Amino acid sequence: MNNKLKIGIIGAGRIGKLHAENIVNNFRDIEIKAIADIYTDKIEDWAKSIGIKNIYKDYHEIINDEEIDAILICSSTNTHSMIIIEAANAGKNIFCEKPIDFHINKIKEALKAVEEAGVKFQIGFNRRFDHNFKKVRQLVKSGKIGDCHIIKVTSRDPQPPPIEYVKVSGGIFVDMTIHDFDMVRYLTGSDVEEVYTNATVLVDPLIGETGDVDTAIISLKFKNGAIGVIDNSRRAAYGYDQRVEVFGSLGAVTVNNDTDTTAILHTKEGIVSEKPKYFFLERYKDSFISELREFFDAIINDTDTPVTGMDGLKPVLIGMAAKKSYEENRPVRIEEIE
Amino acid sequence: MNNKLKIGIIGAGRIGKLHAENIVNNFRDIEIKAIADIYTDKIEDWAKSIGIKNIYKDYHEIINDEEIDAILICSSTNTHSMIIIEAANAGKNIFCEKPIDFHINKIKEALKAVEEAGVKFQIGFNRRFDHNFKKVRQLVKSGKIGDCHIIKVTSRDPQPPPIEYVKVSGGIFVDMTIHDFDMVRYLTGSDVEEVYTNATVLVDPLIGETGDVDTAIISLKFKNGAIGVIDNSRRAAYGYDQRVEVFGSLGAVTVNNDTDTTAILHTKEGIVSEKPKYFFLERYKDSFISELREFFDAIINDTDTPVTGMDGLKPVLIGMAAKKSYEENRPVRIEEIE
Amino acid sequence: MNNKLKIGIIGAGRIGKLHAENIVNNFRDIEIKAIADIYTDKIEDWAKSIGIKNIYKDYHEIINDEEIDAILICSSTNTHSMIIIEAANAGKNIFCEKPIDFHINKIKEALKAVEEAGVKFQIGFNRRFDHNFKKVRQLVKSGKIGDCHIIKVTSRDPQPPPIEYVKVSGGIFVDMTIHDFDMVRYLTGSDVEEVYTNATVLVDPLIGETGDVDTAIISLKFKNGAIGVIDNSRRAAYGYDQRVEVFGSLGAVTVNNDTDTTAILHTKEGIVSEKPKYFFLERYKDSFISELREFFDAIINDTDTPVTGMDGLKPVLIGMAAKKSYEENRPVRIEEIE
Amino acid sequence: MNNKLKIGIIGAGRIGKLHAENIVNNFRDIEIKAIADIYTDKIEDWAKSIGIKNIYKDYHEIINDEEIDAILICSSTNTHSMIIIEAANAGKNIFCEKPIDFHINKIKEALKAVEEAGVKFQIGFNRRFDHNFKKVRQLVKSGKIGDCHIIKVTSRDPQPPPIEYVKVSGGIFVDMTIHDFDMVRYLTGSDVEEVYTNATVLVDPLIGETGDVDTAIISLKFKNGAIGVIDNSRRAAYGYDQRVEVFGSLGAVTVNNDTDTTAILHTKEGIVSEKPKYFFLERYKDSFISELREFFDAIINDTDTPVTGMDGLKPVLIGMAAKKSYEENRPVRIEEIE
Repeated sequence: MNNKLKIGIIGAGRIGKLHAENIVNNFRDIEIKAIADIYTDKIEDWAKSIGIKNIYKDYHEIINDEEIDAILICSSTNTHSMIIIEAANAGKNIFCEKPIDFHINKIKEALKAVEEAGVKFQIGFNRRFDHNFKKVRQLVKSGKIGDCHIIKVTSRDPQPPPIEYVKVSGGIFVDMTIHDFDMVRYLTGSDVEEVYTNATVLVDPLIGETGDVDTAIISLKFKNGAIGVIDNSRRAAYGYDQRVEVFGSLGAVTVNNDTDTTAILHTKEGIVSEKPKYFFLERYKDSFISELREFFDAIINDTDTPVTGMDGLKPVLIGMAAKKSYEENRPVRIEEIE
Repeated sequence: MNNKLKIGIIGAGRIGKLHAENIVNNFRDIEIKAIADIYTDKIEDWAKSIGIKNIYKDYHEIINDEEIDAILICSSTNTHSMIIIEAANAGKNIFCEKPIDFHINKIKEALKAVEEAGVKFQIGFNRRFDHNFKKVRQLVKSGKIGDCHIIKVTSRDPQPPPIEYVKVSGGIFVDMTIHDFDMVRYLTGSDVEEVYTNATVLVDPLIGETGDVDTAIISLKFKNGAIGVIDNSRRAAYGYDQRVEVFGSLGAVTVNNDTDTTAILHTKEGIVSEKPKYFFLERYKDSFISELREFFDAIINDTDTPVTGMDGLKPVLIGMAAKKSYEENRPVRIEEIE
Repeated sequence: MNNKLKIGIIGAGRIGKLHAENIVNNFRDIEIKAIADIYTDKIEDWAKSIGIKNIYKDYHEIINDEEIDAILICSSTNTHSMIIIEAANAGKNIFCEKPIDFHINKIKEALKAVEEAGVKFQIGFNRRFDHNFKKVRQLVKSGKIGDCHIIKVTSRDPQPPPIEYVKVSGGIFVDMTIHDFDMVRYLTGSDVEEVYTNATVLVDPLIGETGDVDTAIISLKFKNGAIGVIDNSRRAAYGYDQRVEVFGSLGAVTVNNDTDTTAILHTKEGIVSEKPKYFFLERYKDSFISELREFFDAIINDTDTPVTGMDGLKPVLIGMAAKKSYEENRPVRIEEIE
Repeated sequence: MNNKLKIGIIGAGRIGKLHAENIVNNFRDIEIKAIADIYTDKIEDWAKSIGIKNIYKDYHEIINDEEIDAILICSSTNTHSMIIIEAANAGKNIFCEKPIDFHINKIKEALKAVEEAGVKFQIGFNRRFDHNFKKVRQLVKSGKIGDCHIIKVTSRDPQPPPIEYVKVSGGIFVDMTIHDFDMVRYLTGSDVEEVYTNATVLVDPLIGETGDVDTAIISLKFKNGAIGVIDNSRRAAYGYDQRVEVFGSLGAVTVNNDTDTTAILHTKEGIVSEKPKYFFLERYKDSFISELREFFDAIINDTDTPVTGMDGLKPVLIGMAAKKSYEENRPVRIEEIE
């Protein structure tokens, strides 16, 4: 009927809805043919208001729809690998939210299915598409700072998630730091070989009671010889702190937090500028649009996707190594996990 | 058939197209029923691609369409006042690009027609809706900097317009500085009473040959006792420079230029950050969306528009006073122009 | 006995003492042989504590001391021209605080005496020796920003002087703005030809009662074609605000305020950096040392002084033109004053 | 004859000369009675030029001079502990350059002698007296950022020292990082309990051949529960990079590098600000004066010195633990070294 790329979305929680609205508002060449969620009644009004006609309880209706070219997997993490395998077997191109899974075997199975099916596959590491971090990558890649020596990532949330979420999150290293592990791989263009975790509970003792930590410094060794460090906190009083620095033989590149405005108030109290943008939805707003654009373009032009299955696997491995390092208080090589 | 607000757009040049696309991409409750342009053949493909069905050569077809609630006037300045009067008489709500006209009488006639018709009327001073300047206004209004003493506006373009445009622009003061005159009124919440213009030709002698200037410092006196200064250049080598500063009894608020990223490159050459966003389409991108949202909301909720007819008239008067001041090298009161 | 340059200081108020201490603490090749002040009893302890042996009530003892090579005139403004003439006639090299005098005739007489005597003569426009402004001058002179188009100076005090001082200060334009008039001449390397003053009383009505103003925007035209603007306030709530910007055909150079530290505090209230250094003694601390070093070096090496008699005269002329402009509300050419 | 505090300086290399000149130029209440250096002929002219009358080859002449109140030990590190013991036994107050020694036993012996003699003792950790770091300490101590969670120190040199120096330096951790170990103790007000070192050779392979490293990330655990990280490089292309950040429960405080001026150049190439001040002599200029002032005041007022013997010992222990950690690639507790 028309030549729009037809997609289906599985899972209509916060991130599924976000993707749906971004597609409707920004991409005239993409049609959301269907959306599936076990709570269909909760999403019906919303889905109709943005023009999605088919709303299913069972996601298999999407997988079995021959018209659908691509599927966005936005359901809970424990369903990812299974849906990936089914969708790949059905010949669908796949965009899957991070992390693929908490079990390495399941990830590997899913990636094998994708490879055998020869479909496009992209992981939702949206921060790679952030304007600031893209610019850092460009500058590093261009050679402006020479060989990479030290990479530093500061990643602090404005507040911890609900404790019920913490319990099922898999722990800070695969839930929160996973984005930073992806970021250091992206910015250096190299793989992590070994991690040492220095972590503790300083924000909320309830987090400690779940066996998790909320404050961490993770030291990294890279294949290309560089070294790096990530620092995390589940709560920064001044807001969402997302900075990186890459230091090399010819110089360094740094990025600061984004703010809503450039206004500076000068009074007898001091010179006051704005706090960082509130949280990831505000800070990484445009990146969620860009990652989908590149995924759709990879399908349309039959090119490689910018975030591959291996890019989905590696940060999970690093996260597990980081956790092991914390538990055993010693540096852990990634190959110990694989 | 549906309860969307229906609008027509008159004039499909750069700004008309921008508004049309912004509406299509951002406002699901607004329908562009028709667009009119004397070069219909040039816009047909574009208009269809964004879903506008009715494309007219004669804008009267829009004015006479009873279904249309509001008209966006984006045609050339010399047609504004005439179309305003016709649209007002037809009971249409009106959004008109700046300036209303170069002739005070025509502006006044148009505003009279609007007033008698009792329709909503808004002028396209989009910079009032810019995130940075809105924040400055909020801070000034909140009393954080006390009484306003000095306001400073720096407004420099990355490059001059084509010389053919300069010839018909009405001169820098009504073409370029008019935005700054609106801005000082907006930020101080007060009217300008007197201007003194210190201006010259330093960027391009061809501009001088048309009788215009390209570099100016305009000194201002306000009704509320404050004083101010605007500086303009038609070419800043480092890009589009748009800064303001409001200084008062309790402090000051400043805003800096927006940049594409926060990246800073540190090398032996120095510490280099990014140039300002390229030009007004990039810098004021979101403000073009916000001004329309507020216009449509004023219609929907039957409230006052945020930029009135008087707000359209006043900057033209100040611009003319600025020009007279330049020609006669003396301070000129705005009441001399009225 | 030794080959130190011997100097005498006339006037031991705040600035006289500052110079004396700067010399003692920084210049081992300069000896303060004597200091004169009408209140000898008030300065005796201090003078001895820094090793000055000769303390006179009558400054003629300094002028008549054949061993003394140079005199620093730090007495009240109304005595400057007379002492300059006497010192020049005695063959002394002269460093004189600004302004030379409030009367043009007296300034010219003094400069004539200096010229006839062929002695070194330097005016205490210390801000030329400030690290920030020197750097701006270097960048402008180097051609990095091309031809100068617009110069902007912001100069605001943290608080007004005592009202008794205001009464005898000669008015804001020769007391406070005089430094800024010197600065625009220094930074552009060009002379001011015309000024227009937009000024008012917003800080303290008592200042208005003395016939003076406390808030001003002064628009300037330069011989080299550039235009400029200075804005002044007698009270900036956030402190001593001393910024300049020179904008040219190839770019611009700006300088910001100095602060005591680079510390930034990030809390839920915002991102707070430090206020400017308190006032001129803190902000221009090093410049007072540098100006003397260059004066002494000019004597020792028999070279030109960096701030000449004409540099002392011109800002007074501009200040008088600025005042006339304010009184008559019209642009005033400097040649009207001369 | 006078009531000036009389001091002797042992060792007239770069740092000894710096202290001597700082005293002569800044402290009128302090007299350098004598200086000792094994190369007396090389320092004679310089010493006389600043007014030091007694120049000895044998430092015992200073230790045995009963008039001398305090001794500055600026000789090579391997002589420190011996001279400390002799000076303490002679009842002299002692200011000793860092590090005290590379051998823990010798340090402890020296500190014991000091304690038994009851003399004042201060270690030359000058960075504690830097304006920026002092401000950070004040803000941390005041409770403005709440409990300390994470401390980060970036410390990079503009260029490595000569390879001959590297060979005898004791290695980067006791030569360069020692200042950063002191800084984290000072800023957190807590002791380091465990370190993990991630280090490598990326700047110069010759450094690696000496058995040393030139690029390092050192992860730290503190007694008060905080965690921290120091990153070092022997060569930053853009200059001497000295930043810290302390992050706590209520916020964070950061300090940036100092620059010579605040000038920013805006051209089509970008917005360029200045590189950091060149190296430690420029960056920490005032701190060398302040540390001595506080040492002398502690003697004059009989109060505690601000940097104690334990403050001299602890960073050496941490440095040795850091080295051990690097060699064994595991976290090392400080108590393993003691």
